[in-house]
Amino acid sequence: MKSFIRHLLVVLLALAGSSGIARAADPLPSWNDGPHKQAIVSFVEKVTTQGSPDFVPVDQRIATFDNDGTLWCEKPLPVQLYFALDRVKTLAPEHPEWKDQEPFASLLKGDLKTAAAGGEHAIVELLMATHAGMTTDDFEKITKDWIATAKHPKTDRLFTEMVYQPMLELLTYMRANGFKTFIVSGGGIAFMRPWAEKTYGIPPEQIVGSSIKTKFELQDGKPVLVRLPEVDFIDDKAGKPVGINEHIGRRPIAAFGNSDGDLEMLQYTGAGSGARFCLYVHHDDAVREYAYDRKDRLAKLDKGLDEAAAKGWTVVSMKDDWKRVFPSEP
Amino acid sequence: MKSFIRHLLVVLLALAGSSGIARAADPLPSWNDGPHKQAIVSFVEKVTTQGSPDFVPVDQRIATFDNDGTLWCEKPLPVQLYFALDRVKTLAPEHPEWKDQEPFASLLKGDLKTAAAGGEHAIVELLMATHAGMTTDDFEKITKDWIATAKHPKTDRLFTEMVYQPMLELLTYMRANGFKTFIVSGGGIAFMRPWAEKTYGIPPEQIVGSSIKTKFELQDGKPVLVRLPEVDFIDDKAGKPVGINEHIGRRPIAAFGNSDGDLEMLQYTGAGSGARFCLYVHHDDAVREYAYDRKDRLAKLDKGLDEAAAKGWTVVSMKDDWKRVFPSEP
Repeated sequence: MKSFIRHLLVVLLALAGSSGIARAADPLPSWNDGPHKQAIVSFVEKVTTQGSPDFVPVDQRIATFDNDGTLWCEKPLPVQLYFALDRVKTLAPEHPEWKDQEPFASLLKGDLKTAAAGGEHAIVELLMATHAGMTTDDFEKITKDWIATAKHPKTDRLFTEMVYQPMLELLTYMRANGFKTFIVSGGGIAFMRPWAEKTYGIPPEQIVGSSIKTKFELQDGKPVLVRLPEVDFIDDKAGKPVGINEHIGRRPIAAFGNSDGDLEMLQYTGAGSGARFCLYVHHDDAVREYAYDRKDRLAKLDKGLDEAAAKGWTVVSMKDDWKRVFPSEP
Repeated sequence: MKSFIRHLLVVLLALAGSSGIARAADPLPSWNDGPHKQAIVSFVEKVTTQGSPDFVPVDQRIATFDNDGTLWCEKPLPVQLYFALDRVKTLAPEHPEWKDQEPFASLLKGDLKTAAAGGEHAIVELLMATHAGMTTDDFEKITKDWIATAKHPKTDRLFTEMVYQPMLELLTYMRANGFKTFIVSGGGIAFMRPWAEKTYGIPPEQIVGSSIKTKFELQDGKPVLVRLPEVDFIDDKAGKPVGINEHIGRRPIAAFGNSDGDLEMLQYTGAGSGARFCLYVHHDDAVREYAYDRKDRLAKLDKGLDEAAAKGWTVVSMKDDWKRVFPSEP
């Protein structure tokens, strides 16, 4: 009986394959047909076709994605800065000294411009004051609670609804083809992990980001990790290949970004042997999202545009290549 | 036709299940029956049984394994030290100054005892001289070439054959039950990655270990990562929970070790909510392997034995619980 069933199963599975049960509909419905969509599909097909000279075994199908501006909206400000601002307001009663201390004084008055005048030093101070001093478990809860209700200042939609529908489809499409998808972001690793699995289908262990140091200790006999106000690693620019090597330990075969902060990740990815795919999302749609590139202050895409042209990387026009930008749009 | 086939498939798959095609033989054949094997199986069954109060969803089934002494033999010395010694011999012609410089002078004379007298400082110096200064790609090749032929000084077997057969079965068993298995070792992350996938079925991105810093640069226009002679992270003792948080971002539900260097990992794992499993491999088999615990110099199991007794962790006797130790044994 058993071997009869097994035999029948084999025959039927073969039949099922040839009769097209498994044939999928267009896996990228929010992408307009054209050379950029075609470039993605061609790459995925050639590295997954057994016998193709470009075939890549499943365990080497590593794809890395920047987050801010590549998977979700980073304008008018990166989402994590809104989180930090809200944390300042929440913590202010415990910090009366902030009334006279920058960047906190300006932030509490809602004057982001003066607060930002302190530059990188002010931002680091802001992050340390709002992201450190609690256990990793507590920080996870704080982040989860915040992201559940925090909204984009212009659209009044949840930040987690400000993700790019075409990129969600791309993540799903690549995973369906055996790719392991990773986020490699300049944003905080601990800020992204609590919501990225639900939002992108990317689990915590596949997220690479900037970090502060943590320390193991026993609190009332209970082992915890305490977040310290000390930078551990900045996962941006030349830091991205370093973070990739440390966390993944293999060179990706595909990488996706949207700014010069992703350039080294794309260079590192593109330089490996065998088939490689590098893609920039170009923010050129001022109507449906935001338009910015060479002169943007926080997320400049300048050297990257030149190198993409020189190396034949795919540069996606949000305006022309995407049928829709956000999931809630028709 | 299609829907008929699909219907038939469903029916046959159900039949196949009930008729026992999928029923496995004993998944842990090298383990003697007894309370320790039973503890492992009971834990895996309760966290994987839908509807059980201890059920754990697949994405949270994280299991972490120490490497040296837990997955493979670490006596008479940890394998990575033999690698470092061989590197010293290989590099000696380029370093005439080593003839008069410790720990190199003693190492080159084969006098490990005098070399080790320099303590931790000497070991760090040894590792930096032998593990840094090349690209990550070059180091991967060096490690792969070495491990392909390097043999255990006593058994004359390849080091990769000095892995514990019962632990290989345990890794396979846990993965078959939806666990993601990670190595969390004090050893070098870059030393383990080139061979751990083939040896243990654990891919590079699921290996956590000690690391030195790397730097991104363009060499003749080609993007590479250069290994710097500077410690980045020591993944041992209180560093293990830190490394777990940084790389995995979730508290494991099961952890496996063999020394006090694993104690904080087991504490951190055991203290989470829900079902938890902590296990120590106890080296008490001087005939088939080595016997060492409370007084060992490099891999002491002392505080860990007391805490295991106090907390009811599973302590596996290599002598009594394992039918065989190494794969090549009958």
